[in-house]
Amino acid sequence: MSAGSHARRYVERLERAARAAEEAGLAGLLVTPGPDLVYLAGHAPPPLERLTLLVVAPGRDPVMLVPLLERPEALASPAADLIEIVGWADGHDPYTTAAKLVGAGRFAIVDQAWASHVLGLREAASDLSLVPAGRALSPLRAVKDDEELAALARVARAADAAFADILDVPFAGHRETDVAADLADALRRHGHQTVDFTIVGSGPNGASPHHEAGERAMAPGDAVVMDFGGRLDGYCSDITRTVAVGEPPAGFPDVYEVVRRAQQAAFEAIRPGISAQEVDRAARAVIEDAGHGESFFHRTGHGIGLEVHEPPYIVEGNAAPLETGMTFSIEPGIYLPGRFGVRIEDIVAVIGDGAIRLNEAPRDPQVVR
Amino acid sequence: MSAGSHARRYVERLERAARAAEEAGLAGLLVTPGPDLVYLAGHAPPPLERLTLLVVAPGRDPVMLVPLLERPEALASPAADLIEIVGWADGHDPYTTAAKLVGAGRFAIVDQAWASHVLGLREAASDLSLVPAGRALSPLRAVKDDEELAALARVARAADAAFADILDVPFAGHRETDVAADLADALRRHGHQTVDFTIVGSGPNGASPHHEAGERAMAPGDAVVMDFGGRLDGYCSDITRTVAVGEPPAGFPDVYEVVRRAQQAAFEAIRPGISAQEVDRAARAVIEDAGHGESFFHRTGHGIGLEVHEPPYIVEGNAAPLETGMTFSIEPGIYLPGRFGVRIEDIVAVIGDGAIRLNEAPRDPQVVR
Repeated sequence: MSAGSHARRYVERLERAARAAEEAGLAGLLVTPGPDLVYLAGHAPPPLERLTLLVVAPGRDPVMLVPLLERPEALASPAADLIEIVGWADGHDPYTTAAKLVGAGRFAIVDQAWASHVLGLREAASDLSLVPAGRALSPLRAVKDDEELAALARVARAADAAFADILDVPFAGHRETDVAADLADALRRHGHQTVDFTIVGSGPNGASPHHEAGERAMAPGDAVVMDFGGRLDGYCSDITRTVAVGEPPAGFPDVYEVVRRAQQAAFEAIRPGISAQEVDRAARAVIEDAGHGESFFHRTGHGIGLEVHEPPYIVEGNAAPLETGMTFSIEPGIYLPGRFGVRIEDIVAVIGDGAIRLNEAPRDPQVVR
Repeated sequence: MSAGSHARRYVERLERAARAAEEAGLAGLLVTPGPDLVYLAGHAPPPLERLTLLVVAPGRDPVMLVPLLERPEALASPAADLIEIVGWADGHDPYTTAAKLVGAGRFAIVDQAWASHVLGLREAASDLSLVPAGRALSPLRAVKDDEELAALARVARAADAAFADILDVPFAGHRETDVAADLADALRRHGHQTVDFTIVGSGPNGASPHHEAGERAMAPGDAVVMDFGGRLDGYCSDITRTVAVGEPPAGFPDVYEVVRRAQQAAFEAIRPGISAQEVDRAARAVIEDAGHGESFFHRTGHGIGLEVHEPPYIVEGNAAPLETGMTFSIEPGIYLPGRFGVRIEDIVAVIGDGAIRLNEAPRDPQVVR
């Protein structure tokens, strides 16, 4: 892709952000380092204590305040021609400078902005009010363009390949942390540039959805939940599969089949225009009908892109309609304390009159040794 | 270390945090996931969109609101016996629950708390006011205990070993990204569990302090700034060395010697009771005397521990006295646009009546091929 088409991408995104702010009745959008700054300006400084702040507002040229020592990097970023870059030096107060650049009014600020920046800005600018962008703006990054979809498909396939590899490693007699390390190696081997999480919950540990891999040694008869992902070219993977070590534990096949059907029901419910919560309900209905409603106590999914969790959230209460080009996880689970857990997660994209799965790893029960 | 001595550590830290809030005239401290939550409760959930909030207040038992699906992990954390754990379920509003747990008054909130949480809390609790902990409280984590000092020394030595290895790789004809990948491998080989940054700025790129390694191929006559680090057992490394590829560029030896003397002057200025800004001034005076004052446009250093940047900041305007057990970087630099940059960075600890360096990699000029 040429530098020119890159610049056009950022022109379009910056204009869209300004328009979204205007339509939401806001004076503009404030962006600190993180996925939104990458999306809008192609700039990725470390999200640390020094203030970097992009101001996007309708009818004004975008301006970005940056630490002086990061000014060369900002000037080399792909959107530098579109944005005025202003530096501030160590030992000076960036918030008074920022307050002047922002001006007065009601602005959205990105959800991940640090508290120190939010409170520093509010103190320096008494006629500024802030609302979280995640609630105030329709999500800027939820609908992916073709290049983004291709990047998400690539990283999903790399995660699938890591799962295929893990089926060949021995589980019995090994610790959860061993398998977590193997998963990390496999993700890197298949092109992941960072590994962000490798949940391995064996036996009763699988009943804790965000269990961190620990010292538990696995044995035949264990169910093992593996939920892992990372990044390739900035875009995230996130996949969960649950396997059995040899002969599965009592009750596992039935529970597995309920979760598999719930995940399929969620998948089949997806189409443009349906609300996010209806997808959640589709999965939940299957699990409730099977008598396990109490054991599925988290939402069905979350958007994914430059962040591993981002809008749209597939959760009761989210009545926003799904749109073509949105990408998110569907990941129902059943957790039986003291026994085991089962979760099956794929990333999907809303396409045509339905959805496609970006993950293709097998969803029928897999057995490891 | 036994579970008992672990629990004692958290008792002491939680009490100290409550006392610090009280002494600062605050109703308490609010802690979201990140280094402060690790420090105070040994709990390390992913810092994502779901609210996790520890409330520490004088005269009250600590309480922590957690997403229901992370409740088992919270209950298994080392400080779980000391903290009441309250869960909230997906699809419910965590901020109204949090507002009840927090109560009214002026609270400090950790600097890294997300804007969405800060603004969500403020909206749900009209009689709550928030100030950033970094400014409102004396830094909780700045003075390290013996175990923390040992961990920082270990990770610093691992970074030193990575630098020793990099002296053996070929630079000429290779890209900055190649050397960055070699540095990452070396950090991992010497025990780093994560690699957080690998700045490689060659030739003119070295004049940008936070330059990201790029496609530039290096050649004899280049100076190369390498600034790299990561984590081992939760504690951070951060070291910078500047090397020459073969014969150094014109002017390099003199500039290098000025930076080396500035760094040594900062080191020798350190003692308990001296202010942070006096250490900055000691380094700056050497560079200004050599006529390069304009080319040293960042602070002299930053604290380090569970975070790579944390208090104390070694910067003009920080009149707070250094204390025994504080750990921070000293990293003066000179940046000559279009030519090269030089920076030398060590992590030091305030000990006895002076300081010790935790890094021992050579500070005299090194030549690579």
